[in-house]
Amino acid sequence: MKISGERLLADLNQLKRFTDTPGKGVTRFSYGENDEKARQYLRETAESCGFSVRTDPVGNMVIGLPGSGDQAEIIRIGSHIDTVRNGGWLDGIYGVVSGLEVLRTLAENGNGRASDVEVVIFAEEEGSNFGSTMTGSKFAAGVYGESDLDRLKDEEGRTLREILRQCGYSPYRKEEVIWDFSRVKAMLEIHIEQGPVLEQEGNSIGIVDAIFGMTTVEVTITGTGNHAGATPMRYRRDAMAAAAQCITEVERIARKDPDGIAVATVGKAAVLPNCSNVIPEKVIFTVEVREKRKERIDQVISEIEEAITQICTQRGTACEIRKLAESRPYRMDERLIKLMSGLASEAGFGYQIMDSGAVHDTCVIAPHAPSGMLFVPSKGGRSHVPYEDTDPDDLLRGAQLLLDTVLAL
Amino acid sequence: MKISGERLLADLNQLKRFTDTPGKGVTRFSYGENDEKARQYLRETAESCGFSVRTDPVGNMVIGLPGSGDQAEIIRIGSHIDTVRNGGWLDGIYGVVSGLEVLRTLAENGNGRASDVEVVIFAEEEGSNFGSTMTGSKFAAGVYGESDLDRLKDEEGRTLREILRQCGYSPYRKEEVIWDFSRVKAMLEIHIEQGPVLEQEGNSIGIVDAIFGMTTVEVTITGTGNHAGATPMRYRRDAMAAAAQCITEVERIARKDPDGIAVATVGKAAVLPNCSNVIPEKVIFTVEVREKRKERIDQVISEIEEAITQICTQRGTACEIRKLAESRPYRMDERLIKLMSGLASEAGFGYQIMDSGAVHDTCVIAPHAPSGMLFVPSKGGRSHVPYEDTDPDDLLRGAQLLLDTVLAL
Repeated sequence: MKISGERLLADLNQLKRFTDTPGKGVTRFSYGENDEKARQYLRETAESCGFSVRTDPVGNMVIGLPGSGDQAEIIRIGSHIDTVRNGGWLDGIYGVVSGLEVLRTLAENGNGRASDVEVVIFAEEEGSNFGSTMTGSKFAAGVYGESDLDRLKDEEGRTLREILRQCGYSPYRKEEVIWDFSRVKAMLEIHIEQGPVLEQEGNSIGIVDAIFGMTTVEVTITGTGNHAGATPMRYRRDAMAAAAQCITEVERIARKDPDGIAVATVGKAAVLPNCSNVIPEKVIFTVEVREKRKERIDQVISEIEEAITQICTQRGTACEIRKLAESRPYRMDERLIKLMSGLASEAGFGYQIMDSGAVHDTCVIAPHAPSGMLFVPSKGGRSHVPYEDTDPDDLLRGAQLLLDTVLAL
Repeated sequence: MKISGERLLADLNQLKRFTDTPGKGVTRFSYGENDEKARQYLRETAESCGFSVRTDPVGNMVIGLPGSGDQAEIIRIGSHIDTVRNGGWLDGIYGVVSGLEVLRTLAENGNGRASDVEVVIFAEEEGSNFGSTMTGSKFAAGVYGESDLDRLKDEEGRTLREILRQCGYSPYRKEEVIWDFSRVKAMLEIHIEQGPVLEQEGNSIGIVDAIFGMTTVEVTITGTGNHAGATPMRYRRDAMAAAAQCITEVERIARKDPDGIAVATVGKAAVLPNCSNVIPEKVIFTVEVREKRKERIDQVISEIEEAITQICTQRGTACEIRKLAESRPYRMDERLIKLMSGLASEAGFGYQIMDSGAVHDTCVIAPHAPSGMLFVPSKGGRSHVPYEDTDPDDLLRGAQLLLDTVLAL
């Protein structure tokens, strides 16, 4: 049984038009006008195939054959359709359209499995509205509850509850939002890799083993701000020079990881007072460490904290480190990994088992139901940018492997 | 002959009240309301001693005995009374009040030298309005001319010409603004050090040898912005890690200066996109190098540029370096340095000959007239901050040495 590549690409090309920033990538925040247009497109497409569509009180949308909700065992295939600002045309929505194509192919081939499959669109994965990622899946897994509807606020101070009401979704009822995991046989997600590994290693498919956990700390180094001309080098306590040495050390520690898995990133920094002729008094920067094992994250973070403390002690600069965020690693289902590896190999697709450095909706589902994730390559490893792209052949291979997996389950 | 310390300190304490930010340091921009109040105070104080006061078309103010302007030889003592935002109570104005105290002491002692001395208040030294430092002295030295009145604009887009008109100063006439240097026997300025050297070395007086020149460049490092989780360390071209290594190298190069004179500062940096979970695509930072010899500045800058280029080549990051600003070093008059050293020694003041890393109005005058500068210590080496301070005994020693110098000239 073969998916229709033409139909898959046609859908993706139609959907990329629903953007707040035409010509500047896809900007489609959950609960916005273009989110609604994309949902409308998907709803009409699904209904024209005879599928029914329902939306839960937080905006998660489910597509399936009429009565799919009553099956004893369901395979859910899902991802998101929202984007970051000026993002790409594939992040998230490729997984949704692939799911729909799998369901459509099963149905038109009269395959009985069609009635077990539901395509899920998780709302607000990117956190573009509320700064909270994987929002819809967190509600579905019961990580978030009703009180979060009032806690989560967008930049204009509007609560999620208000926004949901404006969208016309029905009032929150726990039993309509939280999944009945006893009935979920498998959760599958296909996504673009958003990194360079598949491209660099010449493979079309990545089968995800683990999804990295993450710890983010904020480091504040305080020296003495002083006139850049009037202070000889020997009398300086330069927060910038100290920070630079620390950041170099962060990279060195991550690079020397014997497994080559851990990553550490200093992505954000602020300098005070930030004048070319004043020795910086304060530099504040984030250090984010990711790995597939919690204990390794803790080790790397503690090694980095020690190095920073030592550098600051030697330099006479003060240093404060506080934890900003933490998320645990997730493992995908081993049986699914084996199954998908076998199918990829049979199909003759170049594939590899790999980790995901990024988090996805399926992470949140993984503790509750057997979960599997597939990746297709990202050109240049780029994502969250207007020129995010994947070779069409890889897009088709991924969707086909998704179908093969559903059939083999 | 002795200055009155009490009077000097009383004046300084009166003048520090003229601030836009009471309780948060002194904020007194040239041409503003508190600048006018401070000028009014100085004018009344001067006139009560029988001195006459005139203001030139750009706002430089001169105080002297009636007829001082017609003397064949004049000794000018000056500094500025404007401040940075939330600056200190001594920067600049200590030099003006000391000059006034010298003139007052000479006059009340009936010393003939009084008629040769003029106290100068240079306008807009800090550049708080126009981003152009030493503005008044640049006009006096002919570095700036009439066209600069229209070029210099404040944050609200008002030209210096408009502002001068609003202050009621007379229209620009070159012959009223540019000094007749053939008649200037000496230019003297006393200023707080704004650095830690005198305090660290336990001296009360610094006699300035050279004023540092400066070259500022802007370095832009461009790597590949990417997802911080999805990009293994070995595939990164991280602009932040590259910048950190470069900044560490900037410090190392300056620190190894065999003369221990050169200083290099990275005071300002910007990171793009500046998100904790994105590998930085671009880091832009300034490198400022100061030394007393132009050729050493050039050497250090070129060594830094080479090191940065090499780091970026090794890392596969792009790098652009462009010159932002350049100023030449200035030497103070050797005869004056010797004279002041001898007098400091006679007076039993702990003194040292030193360089100034900061620029001052007297730099601009130095190429045209024999110029000398004195420093008094800055507590903690701090300046341009509300808690800028100097021991009162040091303030008095400095003003006394200024008087002794005028008497010995």
